[in-house]
Amino acid sequence: MGIPALIAPGQRLLCGPGPSNIEPGVQAVMQQPVLGHMDPDLFPILDEITSMLAEAWGQTDGLTLALQATGTAGMEAGIESLTEPGDTAVVAVAGYFGARIVDICNRHGANVVEVTAPFGQPVSQSAIADAIEASGGAQIVAVVLAETSTGVRQPIDELGEIAHHHGALLLVDCVTALGGIPVDFTRHGIDYAFSCSQKCLGAPPGLAPAALSTRALERIDGRRAPAGFTFDFRLLEQYWHARPPTYHHTAPVLHLYAFHEALRQLHAEGPEQRYTRHADVGTHFQEGLRRRGFALLAEAAHQLPQLTAVCVPDGVDGKDVQVGLLRKHGIEVGGGLGPTFPAMWRVGLMGTNATRETADRVLSAFAAELDA
Amino acid sequence: MGIPALIAPGQRLLCGPGPSNIEPGVQAVMQQPVLGHMDPDLFPILDEITSMLAEAWGQTDGLTLALQATGTAGMEAGIESLTEPGDTAVVAVAGYFGARIVDICNRHGANVVEVTAPFGQPVSQSAIADAIEASGGAQIVAVVLAETSTGVRQPIDELGEIAHHHGALLLVDCVTALGGIPVDFTRHGIDYAFSCSQKCLGAPPGLAPAALSTRALERIDGRRAPAGFTFDFRLLEQYWHARPPTYHHTAPVLHLYAFHEALRQLHAEGPEQRYTRHADVGTHFQEGLRRRGFALLAEAAHQLPQLTAVCVPDGVDGKDVQVGLLRKHGIEVGGGLGPTFPAMWRVGLMGTNATRETADRVLSAFAAELDA
Repeated sequence: MGIPALIAPGQRLLCGPGPSNIEPGVQAVMQQPVLGHMDPDLFPILDEITSMLAEAWGQTDGLTLALQATGTAGMEAGIESLTEPGDTAVVAVAGYFGARIVDICNRHGANVVEVTAPFGQPVSQSAIADAIEASGGAQIVAVVLAETSTGVRQPIDELGEIAHHHGALLLVDCVTALGGIPVDFTRHGIDYAFSCSQKCLGAPPGLAPAALSTRALERIDGRRAPAGFTFDFRLLEQYWHARPPTYHHTAPVLHLYAFHEALRQLHAEGPEQRYTRHADVGTHFQEGLRRRGFALLAEAAHQLPQLTAVCVPDGVDGKDVQVGLLRKHGIEVGGGLGPTFPAMWRVGLMGTNATRETADRVLSAFAAELDA
Repeated sequence: MGIPALIAPGQRLLCGPGPSNIEPGVQAVMQQPVLGHMDPDLFPILDEITSMLAEAWGQTDGLTLALQATGTAGMEAGIESLTEPGDTAVVAVAGYFGARIVDICNRHGANVVEVTAPFGQPVSQSAIADAIEASGGAQIVAVVLAETSTGVRQPIDELGEIAHHHGALLLVDCVTALGGIPVDFTRHGIDYAFSCSQKCLGAPPGLAPAALSTRALERIDGRRAPAGFTFDFRLLEQYWHARPPTYHHTAPVLHLYAFHEALRQLHAEGPEQRYTRHADVGTHFQEGLRRRGFALLAEAAHQLPQLTAVCVPDGVDGKDVQVGLLRKHGIEVGGGLGPTFPAMWRVGLMGTNATRETADRVLSAFAAELDA
């Protein structure tokens, strides 16, 4: 076999639905020497990560850690841990990732009750409450706080109370949310939240930060049968929080370094300031799009700042524009997620890319490609 | 909250059971710009990884890819995919990782038949054959090629034929094996093999390379119910091998860069040359230990070159020596895995650390600590 050449990837402005560009300081810290997963000098790094992460979640009790996993694995870990076969899961579906929750619930033997909304709208919280009533009770209620396939922000302020009133746990997909909009884990009564490292947090893809409430841990302790080993949160807790830790897996140490640095930058800026920055830039970008005549998929009242789904105008080949942006401008934007979705571009202005300059650069590149 | 300081981990010579030190070239490539997981420029990198990886496995058919997962998740992915509840799993147990396979099989509802051997010995292949006969058939046979908890090399040359004769699939844990000793996936009739990135391959911890035979894929296609989403190998195949890929997860792109570079270095050296280097250094190190009066846990005939379990001499506090090696010499070695194991140190000379110079440095440090 011939040996391939050294890789030489080109520079990209990553303005799709993620990954986003990472801060130079975050990537640089990955050049530090590797520590073993049981090295005492790694423990304070783990402690600082969970402490900074809990604050980012707005979490005051339960368990905080980061899975070595994809965001979707974070989703599956929660579903697998908090349900047993035959349980009822009430799932809000108004996009691709709500549908993915349904798929994973089905794979794990849950009875799924879907509560839907058209693409571009959030699911009504009272409809979710009605669905729990109608189904005779549920073990989990699952929603997507920031639906990456539509740019819609799902209201969740009533859901913790609704779920707990029925003895259900509230699972919230925060993949595109964390670091870009507030999650308020404890205040909203969330029981399981998961996210990823590569969007509004500005670290490379590779980790799925997670948060569990005390209620969620009690649910796990009371299972009839244990779930899988990889995402056994009580075993993970013994690694992340016991001192000395109990070996469970070999930690992805360079990703932990990067995540530590990304969280440090989040807290140096201040979470509230970061939310404000994302909100300002999102509004700026979306006003620019509307001024240029573009329609947005999400209802304005529920539009996320950090992720915008732009409808492809009639007569335009959306894929051609995407390729042009990538090849002529070095800008990555996303497309729609499959044939059931309307033709769209998905533009993320997340983390280090949440600046007016980047927003303007993307607007100009779109204009250039559409005039071409 | 106060913001933690920038991390500043110290230099380590990582001679435990893994992670091992990574090549500077491998870490440097992680400074390259991040590409999105659907960027056309990433596809050749994926192709080159699977092509180099298949050659490292000795695999000529089936599916090759690398999971964004721990080595143990690679174990669980195979068990979860190739068994359904009620299936029989015949598992060879002669150490911690054989026992972990049993744990995971139980969690997924298999009926487990254990075939055991004392610590320090491999499990007899004919005993495995007898156990399949006695159990009335099995769906999988699982063994650990390089038992990281004992330093024992498990013979597997007859197991493919034995398993297939009974309609079972052969699952082989290659976590400490791949890159250090030959796996010969196709020649040995292996159906599912998994490993990790951070041992003999010399990449950072973060990926679980995996290999599936055509038989294994057919087993997956014939399941009564699908397994989980994260490790659905047919969906993963659509990302890793379809062009354009179908989105399944966000690839951990910096780890893919590192893994590509590590595999390039493996093939630049030559897999056979790398096995020879590990064999030479292992023999050198183990002879040095015996000459100094140390007893090794593994029977000499089944001693792995890359991982040596050294019995802690009577009257010595093994943990104290481990701490001394780390704090005074910057050398990490492992201890035993829990109270059921005899007191030991586990020394890995893997990847870039498989040199006589490193072996001698570890021998000298042990001598210094034991004389202290």
